[in-house]
Amino acid sequence: MGPIQKKVHINVDLGEGYGNFKCGPDEELIPMIDHANVACGFHAGDPLIMQQTVRACKQQNIAIGAHPGLPDIQGFGRREMKLSADELTAMVRYQVGALKAFLDAEGVPLHHVKPHGVLYGMMYRDREVCRAVYEGVPKDTPVFGLAGTFHEETAKEIGLPFVAELYGDVKYNADRTLVIDRKKKAWMTDEIKKHISSQIENSSVTAVNGQDIDLPIGDHGVSLCCHSDSPGAVQIVSAARQMVDEHNKKQGFV
Amino acid sequence: MGPIQKKVHINVDLGEGYGNFKCGPDEELIPMIDHANVACGFHAGDPLIMQQTVRACKQQNIAIGAHPGLPDIQGFGRREMKLSADELTAMVRYQVGALKAFLDAEGVPLHHVKPHGVLYGMMYRDREVCRAVYEGVPKDTPVFGLAGTFHEETAKEIGLPFVAELYGDVKYNADRTLVIDRKKKAWMTDEIKKHISSQIENSSVTAVNGQDIDLPIGDHGVSLCCHSDSPGAVQIVSAARQMVDEHNKKQGFV
Amino acid sequence: MGPIQKKVHINVDLGEGYGNFKCGPDEELIPMIDHANVACGFHAGDPLIMQQTVRACKQQNIAIGAHPGLPDIQGFGRREMKLSADELTAMVRYQVGALKAFLDAEGVPLHHVKPHGVLYGMMYRDREVCRAVYEGVPKDTPVFGLAGTFHEETAKEIGLPFVAELYGDVKYNADRTLVIDRKKKAWMTDEIKKHISSQIENSSVTAVNGQDIDLPIGDHGVSLCCHSDSPGAVQIVSAARQMVDEHNKKQGFV
Amino acid sequence: MGPIQKKVHINVDLGEGYGNFKCGPDEELIPMIDHANVACGFHAGDPLIMQQTVRACKQQNIAIGAHPGLPDIQGFGRREMKLSADELTAMVRYQVGALKAFLDAEGVPLHHVKPHGVLYGMMYRDREVCRAVYEGVPKDTPVFGLAGTFHEETAKEIGLPFVAELYGDVKYNADRTLVIDRKKKAWMTDEIKKHISSQIENSSVTAVNGQDIDLPIGDHGVSLCCHSDSPGAVQIVSAARQMVDEHNKKQGFV
Repeated sequence: MGPIQKKVHINVDLGEGYGNFKCGPDEELIPMIDHANVACGFHAGDPLIMQQTVRACKQQNIAIGAHPGLPDIQGFGRREMKLSADELTAMVRYQVGALKAFLDAEGVPLHHVKPHGVLYGMMYRDREVCRAVYEGVPKDTPVFGLAGTFHEETAKEIGLPFVAELYGDVKYNADRTLVIDRKKKAWMTDEIKKHISSQIENSSVTAVNGQDIDLPIGDHGVSLCCHSDSPGAVQIVSAARQMVDEHNKKQGFV
Repeated sequence: MGPIQKKVHINVDLGEGYGNFKCGPDEELIPMIDHANVACGFHAGDPLIMQQTVRACKQQNIAIGAHPGLPDIQGFGRREMKLSADELTAMVRYQVGALKAFLDAEGVPLHHVKPHGVLYGMMYRDREVCRAVYEGVPKDTPVFGLAGTFHEETAKEIGLPFVAELYGDVKYNADRTLVIDRKKKAWMTDEIKKHISSQIENSSVTAVNGQDIDLPIGDHGVSLCCHSDSPGAVQIVSAARQMVDEHNKKQGFV
Repeated sequence: MGPIQKKVHINVDLGEGYGNFKCGPDEELIPMIDHANVACGFHAGDPLIMQQTVRACKQQNIAIGAHPGLPDIQGFGRREMKLSADELTAMVRYQVGALKAFLDAEGVPLHHVKPHGVLYGMMYRDREVCRAVYEGVPKDTPVFGLAGTFHEETAKEIGLPFVAELYGDVKYNADRTLVIDRKKKAWMTDEIKKHISSQIENSSVTAVNGQDIDLPIGDHGVSLCCHSDSPGAVQIVSAARQMVDEHNKKQGFV
Repeated sequence: MGPIQKKVHINVDLGEGYGNFKCGPDEELIPMIDHANVACGFHAGDPLIMQQTVRACKQQNIAIGAHPGLPDIQGFGRREMKLSADELTAMVRYQVGALKAFLDAEGVPLHHVKPHGVLYGMMYRDREVCRAVYEGVPKDTPVFGLAGTFHEETAKEIGLPFVAELYGDVKYNADRTLVIDRKKKAWMTDEIKKHISSQIENSSVTAVNGQDIDLPIGDHGVSLCCHSDSPGAVQIVSAARQMVDEHNKKQGFV
C-alpha cells in the first residue's frame, strides 16, 4: 500500500497508577510523545495522579486526551463487563468530565477521547457499545480508534472527528482488531521495529495468524499507540519516536 | 435577633443511591425544593444516578450544585479520613468536574458546591482542610456552608461567593457546628417545626446542650438544608417548605 | 410429574445491604425461612452487616450459607464479568472464608454455598465457570443450584453435595435456566402462588415462552429461593412458607 | 541494655499488589524471611494474589500471618479513618477469615495476625481501637506489635499471645511509636545496619528526636519487620537476615 500519507503522531496511556501503586515510567515517556491518554479513575488513576499527570503533560506541551475505562481497578479495565447503553454513556461522560476539571484548572483544552482496554475492544466488536460510549463524548471532540471497524463507522454516524490509531506494541487479529491481554507481554526490539515500520511504511501489518492485512487509514489523522505498562516501554517509545520522526520528515511533515 | 432579613431557600442532598441501592424519595422531594446537592460518586451516587438526578432536577427547574464527599461509599462519607491537602483539592475538582459533565450535556449551569457529611464537618473544624477543599471549587462558584465558622471565613479569603446554610433536620453544637451522625435519626414533626421556626424567625437555635445560639447570617444568601435520608424526609421537607414560604412572603420576597 | 417427593425448604438471600444502604426486610424474613444465603461483601454486604446477619440468623436457628458474588457492588453482582478460572476460584474461596470467620466466632457451622446473581447464571451456561467456582467451595459443603444444568452435573463431578433449588419469585426460560434482571420486578400474589404451587405440587413450571417444563429434582434436597429485594418480599415469603408447610405436611415431612 | 535474649525472626509484609499493580519483590524476599504478613484485600492484595502468596510462602516453609488493614486501597491503608469499634472488629474478622480460607485450602495453619499501616499506629495510640481490633483475632492466635505500648497491654488483657516487633526500615518516635509515612523513603544501607544492630545488640534505638530509647522486649518472642515496598527492600532484608543470623548464632539459637 505504500507509506501512510499523513503525519504520524505517538500516543501513550499515562497516569495509570493508583494511590501508592505506580504503573509506567510516565516522566520518561512524556517528553517523547505527542498525545497523552490520561486514565480517569475507573480502570486506573485517581484524582491526585490525574492532577499530576495533567501538569506534567502541560509542561511538555503534550496534547491531553481522556482515557475512560470500565469501572474495575482490580481488573485494570481488562475484564469484560456487560453494562447497559445508558450506563456506558454516563460512565464515559463522568470520566471525561472529571478529567476536564483538571484541564480547566490548568487552562488546557481537551484534545481527544480514547477508550481504554477491553472497552475499546468491546466497541469495535459491538456497534451498540460503540455508539453508547461515543454518546458520552463531548461534541466535536476527536475520538481515537481503529479505522475499518465500528470505531470509525460510528464516529462518522454520530458526527465525531476520528483519528486512526496504529499499535506499536499490540498485535493484530486478521480482522484488524487487537489482541488485548490482561498483562502486556515483552517484545524483542527488532520485532517491535518491524511491526511499526510495516504499519507506517506500508500501511500494512502481519496479523497473529501470519496473514498480512491492510490498514485503511484513509484521510484521517494518525496516532501510533504505545503502552506505558509494556515491559521495556521506554525503549519501545524511543524506537517508535525515531521511526515516526523519520517517516514524518520523509513525507515532508515537519 | 429577629427574623432572617433574606429570602430563604431549601436545599436537599439528592442522588445518594448507589447502583441498585436507593437512598431517599428524590422524586417526591424535588418539586418542593430550590437547590439540589447532587452526590458525585465518592460517598454515594454513580454516573447513571447522576445523569437521572440532573435530568429530574432540570425538569423541575431546580438549581443544581455538586455535593462532593470523602471517597468512602461504605461509610457514606461519614467516616472521618485524613487526606493530604493536595488530595482534598484534587478529589473535589474531580467530583465537581464529573457532575459538570452531566450539567453540560443538559445545558444547565453549575449553581453551587456543597461538601458532604463529615468532610463538611472537617472543614469547619480545620482551616487547612477547608482551604484545600475550596481550592478545588471552580472560580466564582458559590459554596454552601455555616456562617461564623471557617466555612465563611475561608470562602472570603479565597474569593468564593458564600451562601449561609440553616439545618432543618440536624442539631447544632453550642459552637454553631453540627452533630453529624452515621445514620440520620428520626425527629418528631413538632420538634422539627420548632427547630426551623427558631432559625428563620429568630436567627437563633437551641444547641444540644440547651444553650440558645445566634446564627450570624449577615448579608449572605440563605439556604435551609434538609436530608433525603432522614426518616420522614417528605414530611420534613413539606413542613419546611410551608414555613419558608410563609417567611419569604412575610418578608416581602416573592 | 406429581408433587416433589422431598421436604421443601425456603432459602432467602440476606445481608445484601451495604454500609448505610439497606436492601431487604431481613428481620421480618428471617423467622419465616430455613436457609439464609449471606452476602459476603463482593456484590453486597460488608463486615458489619455480615456480623449482624449471622447473629440474627443464629438467634432464630436458621441454617447459614455463603452467598459469594462477582466483585461489583455498583452492579449488585448482576453485570456479567469475564474472570479467569483462577480468579473465580480464589474469589469464591475468599468470600466463603470471610463468612466462615463470623460463623466460627458464633460457633455456627457453614451450611451451604450458593453463588449470587449473574455468577449463578454464568455457571449454568458455562461448565468451566461452574467448575472454577466449585473449586473454591470447602470440601463436603453442599452447593445450591439448578437441577438438570451444569450446576448439578459439575457438583457431582467435583464431589460436592447438591441441593436442588426452586425459584419462587424468578421466571424460568424454557431450558430450565432463570431470567435474571438487574432489578427485581413486582409480581401479583396470585401469580406467585401459581408459580410456586406448580413447582412443588407438579414438579413443573411454565417458562416465559409459555412452555411447561419439568423440574428434574431427582433425589436431591430441595430449597425454594425467594429474594429479599423483590418488591413485596414479606408477602411473597409468607405465601411461600404457607404453601411449603402444607406440602411438607401432606408429604409426611414434619 | 545488652543484646536481646531471644531468637530474633524476620517478618515482611507480602502480597501487597493489587490486580495488575505490583508492589514489592516478593519472590526474592520470601526465601530470606521467617514470617510473612499477607495482605487481605482491604489495603492491598486481592483473592488471586493472596492465593499465589500463600502458595509461594508454603513452598519455602514460611510461617504465614494475616495482615488486615483499613478498607482503603487508594490510600494503601495509610490514611487514618475513624471506624466504630464494631466495625473494626468485624473488619479484622472478615480479613483474617478470608486469608484462612487460602491457608485451609493449602493445609497450612494461621501463624499470627499483624495489623497494617496506620491501623497499627491507631492501635498503639488508642486503647479502644486496639481492643476492637484484637476482638476480631481468632482465639489463641499470636498478635505482632510494639512492646511497651497498648499493643502489648491489650493483648495481655484479651488473652492473646504477643510477639514483640522491631522495625528494620521504620524510624521510631521517642515514645516508642513509629513514624508511618504514606510512601516509604529510601535509607542508606549503613544507616539501616546501625538501626537494626542497635535494636538487636543493645535492645535500644535512636528516635527521630535524637534520643536513645530502650525497647522493653521482655519475655516475648521477637520478630524484626522490614517492608517489601521500601526502596531497596532486597538489600535491606538481605542485610537484616545476616545480622539476625549472627545474633541468633551468638546467642545460641540455631
